[in-house]
Amino acid sequence: MARRKPLAKPAFPDMQPIEGVSFATAACGVAYKGRTDLLLAELRKGTQIAGVFTRSLTASAPVKWCREILPGGKARAIVVNAGNANAFTGRAGDDIVRATAKRAAEVIGCRDKEVFVASTGVIGQTFSPKLIPGKLAGLHRRVKPDVWTEAAAAIMTTDSVPKGVVRTARIGDATVTINGIGKGTQMIHPDMATTLNFVFTDAKIPAAVLQKALTHAADRSFNCITIEGDTSTSDSLFLCATGAARHPRITGHRDPALKDFCRALEEVCIGLSQAIVRDAEGASRFVTLHVTGAASMRAARTIGRTIASATLFKVSMAEVLPPWGRMIMAVGKSGEKADRDRLDIDVGGMPVAREGAVLGGYDAAGVEAHLKGSEIELSIDVGVGRGKATVWTSDRGKGYG
Amino acid sequence: MARRKPLAKPAFPDMQPIEGVSFATAACGVAYKGRTDLLLAELRKGTQIAGVFTRSLTASAPVKWCREILPGGKARAIVVNAGNANAFTGRAGDDIVRATAKRAAEVIGCRDKEVFVASTGVIGQTFSPKLIPGKLAGLHRRVKPDVWTEAAAAIMTTDSVPKGVVRTARIGDATVTINGIGKGTQMIHPDMATTLNFVFTDAKIPAAVLQKALTHAADRSFNCITIEGDTSTSDSLFLCATGAARHPRITGHRDPALKDFCRALEEVCIGLSQAIVRDAEGASRFVTLHVTGAASMRAARTIGRTIASATLFKVSMAEVLPPWGRMIMAVGKSGEKADRDRLDIDVGGMPVAREGAVLGGYDAAGVEAHLKGSEIELSIDVGVGRGKATVWTSDRGKGYG
Repeated sequence: MARRKPLAKPAFPDMQPIEGVSFATAACGVAYKGRTDLLLAELRKGTQIAGVFTRSLTASAPVKWCREILPGGKARAIVVNAGNANAFTGRAGDDIVRATAKRAAEVIGCRDKEVFVASTGVIGQTFSPKLIPGKLAGLHRRVKPDVWTEAAAAIMTTDSVPKGVVRTARIGDATVTINGIGKGTQMIHPDMATTLNFVFTDAKIPAAVLQKALTHAADRSFNCITIEGDTSTSDSLFLCATGAARHPRITGHRDPALKDFCRALEEVCIGLSQAIVRDAEGASRFVTLHVTGAASMRAARTIGRTIASATLFKVSMAEVLPPWGRMIMAVGKSGEKADRDRLDIDVGGMPVAREGAVLGGYDAAGVEAHLKGSEIELSIDVGVGRGKATVWTSDRGKGYG
Repeated sequence: MARRKPLAKPAFPDMQPIEGVSFATAACGVAYKGRTDLLLAELRKGTQIAGVFTRSLTASAPVKWCREILPGGKARAIVVNAGNANAFTGRAGDDIVRATAKRAAEVIGCRDKEVFVASTGVIGQTFSPKLIPGKLAGLHRRVKPDVWTEAAAAIMTTDSVPKGVVRTARIGDATVTINGIGKGTQMIHPDMATTLNFVFTDAKIPAAVLQKALTHAADRSFNCITIEGDTSTSDSLFLCATGAARHPRITGHRDPALKDFCRALEEVCIGLSQAIVRDAEGASRFVTLHVTGAASMRAARTIGRTIASATLFKVSMAEVLPPWGRMIMAVGKSGEKADRDRLDIDVGGMPVAREGAVLGGYDAAGVEAHLKGSEIELSIDVGVGRGKATVWTSDRGKGYG
């Protein structure tokens, strides 16, 4: 485990047990020595699952498998290993995933297609197809419902802290819990989801409805963060609903009873996303960037992501240089509509540019003081519409190479 | 002028005078003290011009002006200043460009629309609209045909060396000369052209034909380099043909007599592009990346540019780490078709991966020795078609921040 990074929050939250979810971890030694690197999450019968995955066309073997089985909507287990991404491993990689699903299905007593697999770590190295399956019977015997910190720790790679977020939501008169764990510090520029993130709830929601809620939340969280602009081969985000809670039946994704659940789910996803940015390699500043006035929400997000992932923008954040020239450059590069003569920029709430030009008398001392801090707030209005989005990123300090 | 960077070539070539092109330089002090930062290129009557510009939607005021007047196809002057890009300067920036064109037209005796303007430097700062026009009469009195080094030096910003390339070509029985000068070290990820580059020839070729030849050459040179993936607001590439040479009339862009000219033009553009990469901020390795087996030439270039601009790929080059995992990541991110199970990768001509997986017994010592050198050669075949492209980039050393 790396030394805790300056922006990473040390405290792991007090997660609540979720009926129908239990975990066990082990050291299988795919890549690491002397630490846990394998996680089995066992899910009770009837658990519904939704997922979003990297759009990478060179996705890893586990992502390929999960995409195939996701339409079934049912999950009894998730097997996660850290240290090797099982990507660019050819047919040998597919064999590892199939052997893992088969063995997990045997020990749990379910179908292979109810076993999801996720891997994270180095790309382009195979490993023995017996390594993970050989541990699954032992793991199955030891599963426990209340070991969230251990679960979050077993999936870490270059993370300096385990990452977890908990929220509750009301559905009808019932209170349901949503717990999320995640990992990631680099190769972060999600396209549908990022890194490995697992969200569990005891709510009773059918897979098709879960999927809509998860996609919506991912679009406002994981798809709004970027570290260095590189999209991983392994990005996976799962939402598992065990259905143990007693609440009125959910009839569809527009059911008003689902509103508070969706709010809480989005908060869990935003919390995990921000924890990843705070644990970014070489980061010393956490940057929140609001984009307004775009042609659509999607356009605003594209502009925000283009700014946030631009090398020269990130260098300006690290070196306390005025960022607006590089923000403008990135707006132009984004390909989205913007009115050059109506661009407005604020730094830390202080107006810096209006109508396409830097203000002569902007508060230079105030702006510099804000940019020297570790929590930066930037706003840009591109002057063409009502689309808006917020994205989060980090600066790029010397540690990045 | 920065200290010469390790990959930059020190020698400026022996440029030949081109009849109909003359230069003068001055220190106008827009940004720098104690050096020339303003260039007037005067062109003889009848000079035809072609240009390609950044596709940035927040293009600078000079780019906006040049896009407007380019359809005229005629040029009598180019005015270039270094130190201030005149971008994100609102209407004040447009006023500076118009005043510059108007004054240059007066002193030369031509139309405003025959005066092209290019600016490079900081974004978001205005300057007095009198500064550049006030110098033009004096410059006009001092123009000389054989001061290529001085011309190339006056347009430098963070460049550590002036950049020039010269070639000759046969058109019919005549020999024509093509001289190019350029500048640039960062914000390099061209979309149609990069930075400021000026190519001059004495050939007699109509503007419409020149434009086709230039676009073709730019697609195989400037559009194939990337430094940090950030597209400038100011990228401009001009090709001016004075028509002083005596050769058979060129009838169209498919005229066989033009073939050797196009070959030489492409060589000039590739030479200038590579000089920019060699002068990149913080670079210690020059990387040539061949992409084959793509669906089209355009797809191959997109894949190449996505790999070459990926932060984690560049870090792997700087730190002598195996790059293939990050190459695969970038192929997946590019959005172009690739067959995961048919990907082949060579490093320095040595096979490293075949059919989508790393070879067990690849020459690890040979590959490491090659990656430690300063000239890296990588090849990737994505296994779907016959499209190919070569792109050039640098690593990203600690100097980049």
